[in-house]
Amino acid sequence: MQKICFRVAKDLLARSSVQPLSVRMNSQYFPAQKKTMLEPGSFNGKVAFVTGGGTGLGKGMVMKLSELGASVVICSRKSGVLEKTANEISSHTGNQVLACPCDVRNPEAVKAAADMCVDKLGLPDIIINNAAGNFISPTERLSCNAFRTILEIVLHGTAFVTLEFGKRLIEAKKGCSFLAITTTYTQHGSGFVVPSAAAKAGVEAIVKSLAAEWGHYGMRFNAIAPGPIETKGAFSRLDPTGEFRKRMLHRLPTSRFGEVEELANLALYIVSDYANWMTGEVIAFDGGELPRMAGEFNDLLAVTADQWDQLEAAIKATKGS
Amino acid sequence: MQKICFRVAKDLLARSSVQPLSVRMNSQYFPAQKKTMLEPGSFNGKVAFVTGGGTGLGKGMVMKLSELGASVVICSRKSGVLEKTANEISSHTGNQVLACPCDVRNPEAVKAAADMCVDKLGLPDIIINNAAGNFISPTERLSCNAFRTILEIVLHGTAFVTLEFGKRLIEAKKGCSFLAITTTYTQHGSGFVVPSAAAKAGVEAIVKSLAAEWGHYGMRFNAIAPGPIETKGAFSRLDPTGEFRKRMLHRLPTSRFGEVEELANLALYIVSDYANWMTGEVIAFDGGELPRMAGEFNDLLAVTADQWDQLEAAIKATKGS
Amino acid sequence: MQKICFRVAKDLLARSSVQPLSVRMNSQYFPAQKKTMLEPGSFNGKVAFVTGGGTGLGKGMVMKLSELGASVVICSRKSGVLEKTANEISSHTGNQVLACPCDVRNPEAVKAAADMCVDKLGLPDIIINNAAGNFISPTERLSCNAFRTILEIVLHGTAFVTLEFGKRLIEAKKGCSFLAITTTYTQHGSGFVVPSAAAKAGVEAIVKSLAAEWGHYGMRFNAIAPGPIETKGAFSRLDPTGEFRKRMLHRLPTSRFGEVEELANLALYIVSDYANWMTGEVIAFDGGELPRMAGEFNDLLAVTADQWDQLEAAIKATKGS
Amino acid sequence: MQKICFRVAKDLLARSSVQPLSVRMNSQYFPAQKKTMLEPGSFNGKVAFVTGGGTGLGKGMVMKLSELGASVVICSRKSGVLEKTANEISSHTGNQVLACPCDVRNPEAVKAAADMCVDKLGLPDIIINNAAGNFISPTERLSCNAFRTILEIVLHGTAFVTLEFGKRLIEAKKGCSFLAITTTYTQHGSGFVVPSAAAKAGVEAIVKSLAAEWGHYGMRFNAIAPGPIETKGAFSRLDPTGEFRKRMLHRLPTSRFGEVEELANLALYIVSDYANWMTGEVIAFDGGELPRMAGEFNDLLAVTADQWDQLEAAIKATKGS
Repeated sequence: MQKICFRVAKDLLARSSVQPLSVRMNSQYFPAQKKTMLEPGSFNGKVAFVTGGGTGLGKGMVMKLSELGASVVICSRKSGVLEKTANEISSHTGNQVLACPCDVRNPEAVKAAADMCVDKLGLPDIIINNAAGNFISPTERLSCNAFRTILEIVLHGTAFVTLEFGKRLIEAKKGCSFLAITTTYTQHGSGFVVPSAAAKAGVEAIVKSLAAEWGHYGMRFNAIAPGPIETKGAFSRLDPTGEFRKRMLHRLPTSRFGEVEELANLALYIVSDYANWMTGEVIAFDGGELPRMAGEFNDLLAVTADQWDQLEAAIKATKGS
Repeated sequence: MQKICFRVAKDLLARSSVQPLSVRMNSQYFPAQKKTMLEPGSFNGKVAFVTGGGTGLGKGMVMKLSELGASVVICSRKSGVLEKTANEISSHTGNQVLACPCDVRNPEAVKAAADMCVDKLGLPDIIINNAAGNFISPTERLSCNAFRTILEIVLHGTAFVTLEFGKRLIEAKKGCSFLAITTTYTQHGSGFVVPSAAAKAGVEAIVKSLAAEWGHYGMRFNAIAPGPIETKGAFSRLDPTGEFRKRMLHRLPTSRFGEVEELANLALYIVSDYANWMTGEVIAFDGGELPRMAGEFNDLLAVTADQWDQLEAAIKATKGS
Repeated sequence: MQKICFRVAKDLLARSSVQPLSVRMNSQYFPAQKKTMLEPGSFNGKVAFVTGGGTGLGKGMVMKLSELGASVVICSRKSGVLEKTANEISSHTGNQVLACPCDVRNPEAVKAAADMCVDKLGLPDIIINNAAGNFISPTERLSCNAFRTILEIVLHGTAFVTLEFGKRLIEAKKGCSFLAITTTYTQHGSGFVVPSAAAKAGVEAIVKSLAAEWGHYGMRFNAIAPGPIETKGAFSRLDPTGEFRKRMLHRLPTSRFGEVEELANLALYIVSDYANWMTGEVIAFDGGELPRMAGEFNDLLAVTADQWDQLEAAIKATKGS
Repeated sequence: MQKICFRVAKDLLARSSVQPLSVRMNSQYFPAQKKTMLEPGSFNGKVAFVTGGGTGLGKGMVMKLSELGASVVICSRKSGVLEKTANEISSHTGNQVLACPCDVRNPEAVKAAADMCVDKLGLPDIIINNAAGNFISPTERLSCNAFRTILEIVLHGTAFVTLEFGKRLIEAKKGCSFLAITTTYTQHGSGFVVPSAAAKAGVEAIVKSLAAEWGHYGMRFNAIAPGPIETKGAFSRLDPTGEFRKRMLHRLPTSRFGEVEELANLALYIVSDYANWMTGEVIAFDGGELPRMAGEFNDLLAVTADQWDQLEAAIKATKGS
């Protein structure tokens, strides 16, 4: 029986791939809830330190942290962007957001950033390792230096920030909640982003390792592995007809890209006291992209109900053969 | 160098195991936040169907769902307990909680429960597959029947509930958020609970599979894999001296057991619109137990600062050897 | 920088999907080595019990076990096929192959099969849980009975065979090497084969659990999770033009299907004394299919060298923007 | 029922931990098969490049590769040890073993080593990334430099060797089988070896990523994640009474450490043509250590048969309660 099923399935797969766009899309079932989830004041009196906080996901998390009362230090290499974001958020929320230009690849620069954070706001209650770099490139076109650069921004940077603050927190007997932003392709890797896959996999190992080792010091370590989250403008400019967007969405069971605010709500939950018993965990937040891609027979989603009817008839006919 | 390190580490591990209780415990860093996280009314007008809802984790999730406005059907085999819980919660929250005695191993019983839910409240917006059974036993002491019973309660039950409601939801073009409660020992198995490990691993496969397959019908599927969560009374009676409790806690980086309300807050987040982009994900909520147990060198937590000082001296002395 | 890269990558992905067949295929690099790997006589005096041994992968493993000296009991529900295979292999190798009709869903039938094995050949040294069943179907088209049937063949069957022999082996203080044949879609599930995904995931949990629990009784437990392995005839009949075959092959980095003999060589290694230190492991043997499918950017394989040259130029041009 | 079981189990666990040494050990069931598995001449005419080839696991793999006909370049930073190993193996097998001092952290040094390999023997058919470094240390005692050093030896080194040879192999249209030696603590991390956990996790991501990306160039990528493998002398000197050894062994279901020759046999299988369809896979070879450590109830192994009898009686007595 199994053999027959597989034969027919393969036949269906072969046909279905001719019309990959027939997969049904129903994003209306999963509207993005962008409003802030935790209650006002949830982070009053808390200090957060966020790398890569000037743009994108980092900025989104800082916005909500600040809105809920946290004082935040944001750092990245781009001081201009950083200042602008700090001012924008601070004027919106009325809470302190300090811009701290810092190249996390450099232990001395990380030390200086930690000094600044401690001087101005005190030791952080929340640290988000979000700084990232990535190349889309065939691996054979990468120089050793290019490969190293990604490793250093993502993996070394996370390690240095964690070591610098960890030592100070242990010394001060102060707890802290660490969050790293990684990616779902740590699990099975991905071509064309190999340095990023390696670096992010390393970050996840740090998260799980220190969850066990530094728990008794009052530190928690978790990560979010996001899938494709929409950032403003990027798609519309590249894809005037919307054709590309439609293709990309076909491998998302939720039929839409993620929104920065949704990720920020999850992040704030994880670093809040509500998740005080969660540590060492990497949470995929990807609209179902990984299980959709990885499942061997999921391309059968393109098969129509009529075709399934034919298949069932065919199987019945071959039974007993 | 590596060889020396390993030698010394092994020596330390050998010594440390003499005094396993020396691991430092600091649960004060991670107080349990039991209050309800989402805002009042978050589930107004929503219908939830929860198996195993009469006690423990199930009851805890139903309490908060009901508190936030949901109408809930709870089912299990024990009608007495079920009625009592339904009344208790309903009188506390003022919202409907219906007790529906049901053996999920039986497709006809599941059908009847679904009929009851639809008749009284309508098709559910939230379905929580939480019913469980477990034996602690050497596997060679289990009969085939005992093994099958666990598989049927946990795995078949989840499959039947999912099929029954899934078909009706598809027919009605209605979305739904499914949540399953599993366990962290699905990942690497565990002796002495083998039928449960097998059944729960199967449940997680259903979760991930249907996340991909049924996403376009508006359904999300996720799971929480909890670690040791405290249920009232159990420990104090068994462990008057508190010695046992201390031992158990040593493999939790958070130095305490989880609380039902913490799990309930996570569960409600997952089934709420805030997590509308999350599907196919299994979230471990275990106080760090799994990374703590699984990490090869974590028993070195029992080594004291003085011993580490000695180690460093020893390594310096052997360098160059 | 990252943002630019992603934009261009998405653009490339959009274009590339128009011509998915442009992925380069190079199976000549990975010729299948079908000859038997272990030396003659490697399993002299050994007894093997193999479920689902009448056809396909099971038959392939039995062929090589028998060739290397093992006496084998094969069982399945189809007595005609079973007899034919037993005779075919036995006459080829000169070693005993006994056909034992048995429905592994039935504990009594499993007991009878074990009795037969013990009576005729003695307790087995090797047990291969290979029996399987599968439907390719939208899950909403499955009845509860259909779902249960797959669970029973795959998961209950494995459990019952393992319990029946395990108890006898423990009683006799005899070691044994267990091997299960599972599938790569246990890891992230797959739509359209949900009962199989659930059942096989359960089998893997049994493998890992008993590796830990029953190791001290001298038993090892491992699994192979195969990808698409070619069985004779199936494809040519369905796919006269070879078009379908080409499509299927595109997600295999090895550019070809697996061969039964290759899987059999791996299986024999695992159950041989050479792998005596391996237990609790699930080995994927899939031509690279899972990492290829799961990696978020792997579809960029369809981008040509010329297109990459254009991309690099584009990135250089936008730098600093 | 479940609640009762857990209560009793916790009680048993509490008692059992008093006498952790009562776990039964039965290594006689799993004798190490050290003889070479593949047939003589299997690697005739093949060229292998092995980092960290001067000692330990690397030396063990080189010994068997050379014995079966391969010409091998071994490299590490210690030229003295390297020369000695090269001569020892070469004089034993009669095949070329070339010592190539090389610090893999340095792209220029890697380039020089590749030049030497190509000049003397040609492009390799087999590349084994085995070089490693490790500290056993509380993470808060590590400097940023110490952390970076481990990352560079393990992760950068692997990346640089892979890039250097990969580009040449692509240029020459020549296939190759890559193998990396990693560790089981990549999966859940481990305290006290955090830089190593991060680096090795990164290596595994490279393995899986390039399996997908470079497959069409004829390259396969796999890894072995070994558990505790015995190296000569180390234990006896440290542990004269054998007490320590006994403790370590208790978390190995196979009741013994691994042997270098067993790992070498597995490694040679993976890089041989027999495994031509295997790519992107990380095989744990750990005597069952990880599933044994990670399974929540595995410590119940210390409970005796008599205690289980008492437990069963207790459960029967409390039934219905």
